[in-house]
Amino acid sequence: MSFHYLPVAGTKNRVVILPDPKEEKTASGLYIPESAKEKPLRGTVIAVSEIDEDGKSPVLKAGDVVMYGKYSGQELPLEGLDYLIMKETDVLLKKI
Amino acid sequence: MSFHYLPVAGTKNRVVILPDPKEEKTASGLYIPESAKEKPLRGTVIAVSEIDEDGKSPVLKAGDVVMYGKYSGQELPLEGLDYLIMKETDVLLKKI
Amino acid sequence: MSFHYLPVAGTKNRVVILPDPKEEKTASGLYIPESAKEKPLRGTVIAVSEIDEDGKSPVLKAGDVVMYGKYSGQELPLEGLDYLIMKETDVLLKKI
Amino acid sequence: MSFHYLPVAGTKNRVVILPDPKEEKTASGLYIPESAKEKPLRGTVIAVSEIDEDGKSPVLKAGDVVMYGKYSGQELPLEGLDYLIMKETDVLLKKI
Amino acid sequence: MSFHYLPVAGTKNRVVILPDPKEEKTASGLYIPESAKEKPLRGTVIAVSEIDEDGKSPVLKAGDVVMYGKYSGQELPLEGLDYLIMKETDVLLKKI
Amino acid sequence: MSFHYLPVAGTKNRVVILPDPKEEKTASGLYIPESAKEKPLRGTVIAVSEIDEDGKSPVLKAGDVVMYGKYSGQELPLEGLDYLIMKETDVLLKKI
Amino acid sequence: MSFHYLPVAGTKNRVVILPDPKEEKTASGLYIPESAKEKPLRGTVIAVSEIDEDGKSPVLKAGDVVMYGKYSGQELPLEGLDYLIMKETDVLLKKI
Repeated sequence: MSFHYLPVAGTKNRVVILPDPKEEKTASGLYIPESAKEKPLRGTVIAVSEIDEDGKSPVLKAGDVVMYGKYSGQELPLEGLDYLIMKETDVLLKKI
Repeated sequence: MSFHYLPVAGTKNRVVILPDPKEEKTASGLYIPESAKEKPLRGTVIAVSEIDEDGKSPVLKAGDVVMYGKYSGQELPLEGLDYLIMKETDVLLKKI
Repeated sequence: MSFHYLPVAGTKNRVVILPDPKEEKTASGLYIPESAKEKPLRGTVIAVSEIDEDGKSPVLKAGDVVMYGKYSGQELPLEGLDYLIMKETDVLLKKI
Repeated sequence: MSFHYLPVAGTKNRVVILPDPKEEKTASGLYIPESAKEKPLRGTVIAVSEIDEDGKSPVLKAGDVVMYGKYSGQELPLEGLDYLIMKETDVLLKKI
Repeated sequence: MSFHYLPVAGTKNRVVILPDPKEEKTASGLYIPESAKEKPLRGTVIAVSEIDEDGKSPVLKAGDVVMYGKYSGQELPLEGLDYLIMKETDVLLKKI
Repeated sequence: MSFHYLPVAGTKNRVVILPDPKEEKTASGLYIPESAKEKPLRGTVIAVSEIDEDGKSPVLKAGDVVMYGKYSGQELPLEGLDYLIMKETDVLLKKI
Repeated sequence: MSFHYLPVAGTKNRVVILPDPKEEKTASGLYIPESAKEKPLRGTVIAVSEIDEDGKSPVLKAGDVVMYGKYSGQELPLEGLDYLIMKETDVLLKKI
C-alpha cells in the first residue's frame, strides 16, 4: 500500500493511522453492544510527520500497531480508505 | 496567477490556500451526501508568511498541495477568487 | 493626516488602522448581501507600538495596506475618524 | 493633587487613572446616545507600580494622558475622586 | 495582636489581611447603598508567606495598609477575628 | 499511627492530611449554622510526596498543622480514617 | 500475566493499571452504598511509558500498588481484562 501524503506537524507530531476493521460480532458470534465498543481502538501507523515545533522526531513509525481513544483524531478518507490523522500524543499504546 | 499580499504571521506562521473546486458528484455521477463532505479538503498553497514569533520559517511553500480540516482558517475573497488563510499548523498533510 | 497618540503594546504589539470606506455596492452597481461582507477587511496602518513585552518591534509600519478579520480589534473614534486598534498578530495580510 | 497609595503589580504592572469627566453632550449641545459612548475612554495616569513579576518597569508614568477600553480596570473611589486601576497592558494609547 | 499561622505560598505568595471594619454609614450619618460598597476594600497585612514557587519573596510585609478587590481572597476566621487570605497579586494598592 | 502509602506528586507536590474532627457545637454548646462552617478547615499533615516535576521538595512535612479551603483536595478513606489528599499549593496556612 | 503493549507518553508519562476487583460488600457482609464508593480506587501498575516529552522517566514501575481517583484515566479492555490507562500524574499514592 502506498500513501502519497506526508503528515505536517502542528504543535505536536501527527500520525496517519489505518484503523483495524471493526468487528461487529465477537468470536462466538454475538453482536457487541454499543457501550462495549466505546473503548480504545487499534490500527496501524501509515505515516508520521518529520519533526514537531520543538524539534522532536516522532517516536512512532510506519508499521507500528497502536491503540488510541475512540474519539481521537479526525477522519481522513483518501483513495478509498478511511484513515485517521491525530496528534502522536493521542496514541495510547504501541504493540510490542 | 499573481497574488499581491504577504501573509503576516500571528503567533504561528500563516498560509494562504486556494482550495480545489468542490466536486458535488462522484466520478460515477452520484451526488455526495453532506456528511461525506465534512472531511479534510485539498488545496494549493499560494503564499506563506516569512517568519513566526519564535523566529521559525514556515515548512510549507507556494505550490504545495495540502489537505486541511473543513473548518480550518477563514475565507479570504480577493480579486474574484475564494482563498483561505489559516495557521500553518492547521494544515494536516502535504502531497509528496 | 496627523495622529497624536502612540499605541501602547499589551502582551503583543498594537496597531491603529484606518479602515477603507465600506463599499455597499459592487463595481457593477449591485448591493452586496450581508454574508458576503463578513470577510476580511482592508485598511491602512496609521500607528504602531514601539516594542512588545518580549522586546520585539512590530513588523508593520505606518502606511502599510493590510487585511484583517471583520471582528478584529476595537473601534477607536478620534477627531472625527473611525479607527480600529488591534493586536498586530490579528492582521492577516500586508499588500506588497 | 496628592495620591497616597502605590499600585502593587500583579502579574503585570498596574496603573491608577483619573478618567476625564464624561461629556454627556457634544460640543453642539446634542446628547450622545449610549452606543456612541461604548468606546475607548481617556484619562490621566496618577500612579504606577514599580516593577512587575518579570522585573520590568512600567512604560507609562504619572501625568501621561491615555486611552483605554470602556470596560477595563476596576473602580477605585478614594478621597472623593473616582479613579480606575487596571493592568498597564489594558491601556491602548498614550497621547504624544 | 499575635497571629500563630504562617501563610503557605501557592503558585504565588499569599498574604493574610485583617479588613478595616465596614462603615455602614458615611461620616454625615447616611447609609451607604449596596452598589457604592462594591468597591476595593482596605485592610492591614497581618502575615505573608516566605517565598513563592519561583523563589520570589513577597513585596508586602506585616503592617502594610492595602486595598484589594471586594471579591478577592477567601474568608479566614481565626480566634474570633475575620481575616482574609489572598494571593499577594490580588492586592491592588499599598498606602504610602 | 502508621500510614502505608507515599503520595505521588502530580504537577505539584501532594500532601495527605488528616482533618481535625468537625465540631458541630461551639464551646458554649450552640450548634454552628452551615454557612459558618464553609470556612478553611484544619488538619494534620500525614504524608508528603518526595519531589514535584520541577524537582522541588515539598515545604510541608508530616506533623505540620495546616489550614486549607473547605473544598480542597479529594477524600481518601483508608484503614478506617477519612484522610484528604490535595496539592501542597492548596494548603493556605501552617501553624507556627 | 504478560502484557503486549507499551504505553506511549503523551505530554506526561502514561501508566496501565489493573484495578483491584470491586468489593460490593464490606468484610462484615454489608453492601456499600454508592456514595461511599466514589473514592480513590486501588490497582496494580502493569506497564509504564519510557519517557515523557520533557525527557523524564516515570517514577512508577510495573508491580507498584497505587491509588487513583475514581474518574481518572480511560478504560482499556485487552485480552479479557479491564485495564485502565492514565497519566502518571493522575496516580495519587503508591503503597510502601
